[in-house]
Amino acid sequence: MSGNTLGKLFCVTSFGESHGAAIGCVVDGCPPGLAISVEEIQAELDRRKPGTSRHVTQRREPDEVEILSGVFEGLTTGTPIALLIRNQDQRSRDYGNIAETFRPGHADYAYWQKYGIRDHRGGGRSSARETAVRVAAGAIARKWLNERHGVVVRGFMSQLGPIEIPFESWDEVGCNPFFAPNAKLVSELEAYMDELRKSGDSVGARIDVVASGVPVGWGEPVYDRLDADIAYAMMSINAVKGVEIGAGFASVAQRGTEHSDEITPEGYLSNNAGGVLGGISSGQDVLVSIAIKPTSSIRLDRRSIDKQGEAVIVNTHGRHDPCVGIRATPVAEAMLAIVLMDYALRHRAQCAEVTTATPRIARLAPDGVQRVPAPGA
Amino acid sequence: MSGNTLGKLFCVTSFGESHGAAIGCVVDGCPPGLAISVEEIQAELDRRKPGTSRHVTQRREPDEVEILSGVFEGLTTGTPIALLIRNQDQRSRDYGNIAETFRPGHADYAYWQKYGIRDHRGGGRSSARETAVRVAAGAIARKWLNERHGVVVRGFMSQLGPIEIPFESWDEVGCNPFFAPNAKLVSELEAYMDELRKSGDSVGARIDVVASGVPVGWGEPVYDRLDADIAYAMMSINAVKGVEIGAGFASVAQRGTEHSDEITPEGYLSNNAGGVLGGISSGQDVLVSIAIKPTSSIRLDRRSIDKQGEAVIVNTHGRHDPCVGIRATPVAEAMLAIVLMDYALRHRAQCAEVTTATPRIARLAPDGVQRVPAPGA
Amino acid sequence: MSGNTLGKLFCVTSFGESHGAAIGCVVDGCPPGLAISVEEIQAELDRRKPGTSRHVTQRREPDEVEILSGVFEGLTTGTPIALLIRNQDQRSRDYGNIAETFRPGHADYAYWQKYGIRDHRGGGRSSARETAVRVAAGAIARKWLNERHGVVVRGFMSQLGPIEIPFESWDEVGCNPFFAPNAKLVSELEAYMDELRKSGDSVGARIDVVASGVPVGWGEPVYDRLDADIAYAMMSINAVKGVEIGAGFASVAQRGTEHSDEITPEGYLSNNAGGVLGGISSGQDVLVSIAIKPTSSIRLDRRSIDKQGEAVIVNTHGRHDPCVGIRATPVAEAMLAIVLMDYALRHRAQCAEVTTATPRIARLAPDGVQRVPAPGA
Amino acid sequence: MSGNTLGKLFCVTSFGESHGAAIGCVVDGCPPGLAISVEEIQAELDRRKPGTSRHVTQRREPDEVEILSGVFEGLTTGTPIALLIRNQDQRSRDYGNIAETFRPGHADYAYWQKYGIRDHRGGGRSSARETAVRVAAGAIARKWLNERHGVVVRGFMSQLGPIEIPFESWDEVGCNPFFAPNAKLVSELEAYMDELRKSGDSVGARIDVVASGVPVGWGEPVYDRLDADIAYAMMSINAVKGVEIGAGFASVAQRGTEHSDEITPEGYLSNNAGGVLGGISSGQDVLVSIAIKPTSSIRLDRRSIDKQGEAVIVNTHGRHDPCVGIRATPVAEAMLAIVLMDYALRHRAQCAEVTTATPRIARLAPDGVQRVPAPGA
Repeated sequence: MSGNTLGKLFCVTSFGESHGAAIGCVVDGCPPGLAISVEEIQAELDRRKPGTSRHVTQRREPDEVEILSGVFEGLTTGTPIALLIRNQDQRSRDYGNIAETFRPGHADYAYWQKYGIRDHRGGGRSSARETAVRVAAGAIARKWLNERHGVVVRGFMSQLGPIEIPFESWDEVGCNPFFAPNAKLVSELEAYMDELRKSGDSVGARIDVVASGVPVGWGEPVYDRLDADIAYAMMSINAVKGVEIGAGFASVAQRGTEHSDEITPEGYLSNNAGGVLGGISSGQDVLVSIAIKPTSSIRLDRRSIDKQGEAVIVNTHGRHDPCVGIRATPVAEAMLAIVLMDYALRHRAQCAEVTTATPRIARLAPDGVQRVPAPGA
Repeated sequence: MSGNTLGKLFCVTSFGESHGAAIGCVVDGCPPGLAISVEEIQAELDRRKPGTSRHVTQRREPDEVEILSGVFEGLTTGTPIALLIRNQDQRSRDYGNIAETFRPGHADYAYWQKYGIRDHRGGGRSSARETAVRVAAGAIARKWLNERHGVVVRGFMSQLGPIEIPFESWDEVGCNPFFAPNAKLVSELEAYMDELRKSGDSVGARIDVVASGVPVGWGEPVYDRLDADIAYAMMSINAVKGVEIGAGFASVAQRGTEHSDEITPEGYLSNNAGGVLGGISSGQDVLVSIAIKPTSSIRLDRRSIDKQGEAVIVNTHGRHDPCVGIRATPVAEAMLAIVLMDYALRHRAQCAEVTTATPRIARLAPDGVQRVPAPGA
Repeated sequence: MSGNTLGKLFCVTSFGESHGAAIGCVVDGCPPGLAISVEEIQAELDRRKPGTSRHVTQRREPDEVEILSGVFEGLTTGTPIALLIRNQDQRSRDYGNIAETFRPGHADYAYWQKYGIRDHRGGGRSSARETAVRVAAGAIARKWLNERHGVVVRGFMSQLGPIEIPFESWDEVGCNPFFAPNAKLVSELEAYMDELRKSGDSVGARIDVVASGVPVGWGEPVYDRLDADIAYAMMSINAVKGVEIGAGFASVAQRGTEHSDEITPEGYLSNNAGGVLGGISSGQDVLVSIAIKPTSSIRLDRRSIDKQGEAVIVNTHGRHDPCVGIRATPVAEAMLAIVLMDYALRHRAQCAEVTTATPRIARLAPDGVQRVPAPGA
Repeated sequence: MSGNTLGKLFCVTSFGESHGAAIGCVVDGCPPGLAISVEEIQAELDRRKPGTSRHVTQRREPDEVEILSGVFEGLTTGTPIALLIRNQDQRSRDYGNIAETFRPGHADYAYWQKYGIRDHRGGGRSSARETAVRVAAGAIARKWLNERHGVVVRGFMSQLGPIEIPFESWDEVGCNPFFAPNAKLVSELEAYMDELRKSGDSVGARIDVVASGVPVGWGEPVYDRLDADIAYAMMSINAVKGVEIGAGFASVAQRGTEHSDEITPEGYLSNNAGGVLGGISSGQDVLVSIAIKPTSSIRLDRRSIDKQGEAVIVNTHGRHDPCVGIRATPVAEAMLAIVLMDYALRHRAQCAEVTTATPRIARLAPDGVQRVPAPGA
């Protein structure tokens, strides 16, 4: 349980570098008897994989996953599930020039000073390529959460650079390369990205993730709050610089009468809490937003230093996403699913026999006030 | 290492309810030989304690801490340091009416459905009173970080409800009840709070925390990133709904040329990264912002339900902070210190013998661009 | 979760020195709704406390426990249970002479070289006094295991120095100061101890612990085997030098036909496995034996060195157990209970929904062969 | 950090089934800059691999290891090291008959009742084949321990069934298929094994492991004692039923004057403690003994039940080790190395700056009394 393991009971241990032999993970703690196939995991990976549109990196990685263990005759056995993805399109020569210099905004300098050695090829361990592993592991969590608890985890892009993307419909999310929930804005987004790509610059994005159907009671009260571990999991994604639960930073300017969600026998009247109260799921949708910084690899000249501390000019050619946020939606969904599953197991470990006579409050009543973008889940 | 323990090598295990016999913690993993006194810990507690101005709760808790173990002749011994704070001013009768109803915005309903039992007095375990424990433990971490590495952790209120508080000077922070870094705004803040208190409503706040002097190299690359665990620690504070590192959500609309901090032999030219790159400290100041929601306990009528699921009207009298954010600054500082110390130990565990010939980049050059509110640390 | 925390889901974090202000622990992860009283915990502590016969140390410690948190109106709430035992009879002056010298067989030298500082009074943190904390925490585990699963954890002394103590009856165990399960041998044990005490020397002992009623299925298959964590827990008790499960070291000379326990529809025919197969409880009694070394504090002259590395002669006066094994039975029981409870929670976290049509094999059939000392299972 | 991860800072996460696609592990937390090659890991694996003599299983597994990540240009980078071993000689048809029945002494019944599903082929996850992974990971730990601290970890067989094997010389250990440290006994061991194999029965063994050069100070004082985690690690090896440190169970009958190791300025005069005092390494050799039960797979008829609970007769053909202890020496060495490395890192995390003026006591003086089998340390 050193730094590359996520979760306490549902545990994902990740390995691999961008241009090494392979990336992969070991998923430990999955309940036995879950039907899971390579195809189901691959389907999630395909949502994240590079090269699917002109707006993302053109690296051609099939990201084909192999299940090495833990699944027998199509069912999980309760033993560790090892997932392996061989790297294929490693044009390491593109990266020769970065062995000696530190790219601004990248982990290069920090890695170098921490470890005294680094696999510089494609960013090595710090490459966003590692997020494929999270998506693969997340596919297992999503399946279990859905089968066992009816939980659905979905995300979308709510802002691309300066363009806000109001939520219209989940149906749109899968129909464009941005995971945008709003068909009307897609052409604007495409034009923006085309211009950006031409300029050689990059841009940030905001992703929202929603977990529907989460039962009341998941989460621990003090440190291991459900929202604390969600924040951890989201901030651990490459390029994420901020995390909000529910109203998030908007709650700074809110009054108590405005923020705290009233309750009626028919359900909560709003969801400023984002589905978590006192660190424990409230029975409402869990609402998470993350801020993703602009890609640090850009073609434009940037000042930096080399290993000797001398001034250099860096510009990064090669194949890069001009907005890493575009492929981040499946990753954020996966991370939320992994955390929820871990907490589902933790909850039943301690509280398996708890029952109360108090009715479970249904999700947000249809006539309830709700924060955008909590969609009509 | 269930839910009430924070940290992997520098570990804080917290216990206690708002109106039980005591609150406290066990701090495990502290290096031996650190000089620490009750007075030093008490001084930190006094910064957070209630009843110090008319703008905070009037509960009279001296918050007197006792060191039960782990310190011998004024020095830490390397064994667990137990800290105990007896509860004294427990007017539990104020809370009788909340035993049967669920206060909106509070953890009441979630606790009840999770555990089937709850100590309702003063919110029990979910009370912000628990944060005193964090401040006490944090005092130890701050001392060590400062002595061993010259790290200074400081925070301030950067927004109170609608009022933004531009950073002017660290010297102001200790001179007003708000931890506001700007003397000119204090009377406005006081007037706002007086009006608010009269109205019976509450409001949110934004707190910024800065760690100066953090050396390059703390943090793990993939899941246990330094910023991931900071996000976890901050989100685990009562009422926090959002966490930002560096530019945070502002990075969504930034371009790569704007966000990624250029490097010169004299230092970084900006600190959008907030001192963390690829999950590892970069050698710059670590910059963290948190959003704190408005206090859920307000005197105004709110709709809710009782244990039978029947509709009720709740309003909360008793002694409450109209803005829990006012006392949150020492808590946020403590949490940042605890995380940094944990990562300092983790780093030297793995990388004790690493050295490089590359110069350590000094902190932000004096003429460098820097994001507000990174103060001239 | 540094070195002073035991368990993964049912977690005991221990603190305190022999002659400091107090010892105690935080028990985290206990399921809510368990009825537990100070008296029940005290009753277990009283079984271990010093001064109850002439054969143990004459230090007069009432070992009065206080519950500081986590219990409300007589029931656990699911939040951390803090237990506090104030030290009272601290004759630290007895220990002044050991501040500068290292007692052979004790942790003195190792502590000193590890930490560069130590609370030498009474052995400080390395004192067996810390085991009181384990007994207190174990009382909670025992209660839950028994109420929820019918598990009973009992131990006895099976050897005192050279005297083997054949198991006769559980009824005897509580009727003599040795936890000996055999009334006929008590006077021999007393005579042996009287002679030993007079000689100034000390002696070892062997303790057996049996958990009856453990259902099949607790334990993880590879590293976190039930028996692995039992071995860890037992070896973590002061003075323990060996741990056996089931046939233990006797299995070295056994043949497969002799060792592996045959199964019939009526039950297992023997229990060489000691109730654990492949790291998982088998449905039979869990059988554990531990070896406890002779007390290192003796009145006789021993060669050692002091802090300067100079040769000295050490003999330890003060109040000591001539056989620490005599008070070890409640400690070993407590440790087994804590491990079992942790694994009970871990098991249901992962496997809560597992059922099979295969009958649960009853415990050892009455006509079955069984290893001594598996008592009247 | 669920059940298949070993260690806290130097972490091994294991996966794989006997007849699945592969076995392997992720080694996380290794310090950067360690030179390690496939050949070095392979050399350790070759010591354990099957088919090397007539006395072990004839399964032909080359056990070829591949390094997938974490090593760059021959040096560890500080990121996770994934090791992969493809399974090749999987005659699963040999195991068809065990899908429906539970082999006595095996984990079959316990797995089935725990998980409700199991990969029965070759024992699946419970197969001793998983120990290859430990040996591979241990190779890294051994290399680091030796380079950084001069620690050498070596083991040998000290008893095979009824035949005790007195220690003569480390030089003999690698010269016979038993890891026996005594050339004179090898022909007796071979004759015994030939007879045993013919009989269809199996037998147990005792393995001793010694770590030389361990500096004083590794280990935590209360739960995470060095010896406690060694006990855990050893008991987690398939078929192990007992663990001793130093004098082990012999200490039961010892007197204090006999057991506690006297100290002189020239060194300790004996090593009954086995190199651990108060949970912390003492500067002497760490001495560990383990008991390994007889192989449960034998050709002779044994009573058992099937999935329906009906009585059946089981005898196990296929390719099995008649004494699993024969190949256990490299596994036990690996486990000791992994634990020591974890504790080396833990120690420096907390105590990196500790120094004392007290001389480090040299290892056992040449004229010192020492327990068999502490060899020519």
